[in-house]
Amino acid sequence: MGEIILFSENMTHNNDPDFIKFAHKMADVAGEIARQYFRTPFDVEQKSDDSPVTIADRMIEQRLREMIEAQRPQDGILGEEFGHKPTGNGLTWVLDPIDGTKSFTVGRPTFGTLIGLCEDTKPVLGLIDQPVLHERWLGVTGGSGYERGCERGAASKAFFNGKPIHTRPCAELKQAVFGTGSPSQISRDDHARFDRLDRAARYTVYQGDCYFYGLLANGSLDLIIEDQLGLYDFIALVPIIEGAGGIITDWRGRPKTLDGDPSVIAAGDEGVYSTAKDLL
Amino acid sequence: MGEIILFSENMTHNNDPDFIKFAHKMADVAGEIARQYFRTPFDVEQKSDDSPVTIADRMIEQRLREMIEAQRPQDGILGEEFGHKPTGNGLTWVLDPIDGTKSFTVGRPTFGTLIGLCEDTKPVLGLIDQPVLHERWLGVTGGSGYERGCERGAASKAFFNGKPIHTRPCAELKQAVFGTGSPSQISRDDHARFDRLDRAARYTVYQGDCYFYGLLANGSLDLIIEDQLGLYDFIALVPIIEGAGGIITDWRGRPKTLDGDPSVIAAGDEGVYSTAKDLL
Repeated sequence: MGEIILFSENMTHNNDPDFIKFAHKMADVAGEIARQYFRTPFDVEQKSDDSPVTIADRMIEQRLREMIEAQRPQDGILGEEFGHKPTGNGLTWVLDPIDGTKSFTVGRPTFGTLIGLCEDTKPVLGLIDQPVLHERWLGVTGGSGYERGCERGAASKAFFNGKPIHTRPCAELKQAVFGTGSPSQISRDDHARFDRLDRAARYTVYQGDCYFYGLLANGSLDLIIEDQLGLYDFIALVPIIEGAGGIITDWRGRPKTLDGDPSVIAAGDEGVYSTAKDLL
Repeated sequence: MGEIILFSENMTHNNDPDFIKFAHKMADVAGEIARQYFRTPFDVEQKSDDSPVTIADRMIEQRLREMIEAQRPQDGILGEEFGHKPTGNGLTWVLDPIDGTKSFTVGRPTFGTLIGLCEDTKPVLGLIDQPVLHERWLGVTGGSGYERGCERGAASKAFFNGKPIHTRPCAELKQAVFGTGSPSQISRDDHARFDRLDRAARYTVYQGDCYFYGLLANGSLDLIIEDQLGLYDFIALVPIIEGAGGIITDWRGRPKTLDGDPSVIAAGDEGVYSTAKDLL
């Protein structure tokens, strides 16, 4: 009880409670490694060696795991590269060292490092870091529903480079800018599913990686639908979307948690959210 | 004759022949306007006013046209927003003030300003500017095939932020990283066309705007196929791709010129180019 204080009214990069500070520190370490390998030459015709993104991916996760084990040995860890360390205190860090490896590989700076913290199965803190552009989103859940985690009664909040952010109103799907990985990612059993959404929305944008979720939280994108996501891909996004006033659930409307399924629908406004969910 | 010198051996941002300097100056002016409107709030629910991207688009083209008319009144202009001014001397500037308006609108910095120069119908100079990231590609054609335009015998060259760039080798399509706008963009009469390419390539990346062509010239992407492009969308890309050692034609293998069709295939290597063209 009271171990974690995730939110303070005057939160800035220099005025962080411990958990937020620790997440920022991990993102700083990850960013240094990512920048070192971004846009380094890679010969596609030479098959034996690891690509720069593979090396950066592993190196970042290894460093972040070391930091957690040294400073918070009771916390659990779920990392994309090196698996699961069970929690001893109900807290679990969820790490995706490089989300958007394809963008990383072609040299497009929309990949990101994702750092999430769960209390039991619920995401309570999330961070997206784009280390080349020096852009960082942070979200923390409020105090209403959790045993520990923040001040009682504090609201969920999200920040872009330290400044509070909010999703924008968008009541109707026909006004919505809709983002997804690629059309095939959301077809599943129903090949017309993507076309229905694409036609109903104002227009569609593709392959934004984690960066699109940050833009949705900033209020410049209205709807994101994806599928086949690992836990590493979405846990960190939840507190950011919710902290900015948006909604993020699976396709059936259930909260995104550590025991959730691989589907995601995120929206900045309840209106566009419900119409889109009905179309799925 | 000898009016334009598009290439000098020691070309840098500070040591440009006149045409290159003028293109850089136009890009600087465009960038200032683009940055001013990028990520400014826009309410999707309010329909009457122009969006920030529409305002920036028009304002940039207007400024660039004024610069051309003041300093080079004989040159023709083809702009996306304000149409065609016929050339008086065989030279035509081709302008796309904001290529990638969807990316601009959602706040993703992969849009760009495209500035191309044609001699008769052939592109001889091209510039892609990404003003938020301060990234700029420049390409100039060599002296072999043109009446005017550069030193006799000079090679085509391309530069990224002033440094020479080259495409990378990629002999086989199965090794190639393949980029396109969206799957639907390349289906035309044949709905299986995109799937054939997608399956044959190593993997596919989407919606890179003009930025993808810069990355191909940099040697981190191997193949781009698009369709339904305006003249404004591709003229500036040609000298950059060719200057970096790549190939850019329409789907039938014809050079991309002012009288060309709206299809594009660009590749860094002859091997991947011919296999992909056969699959189209």
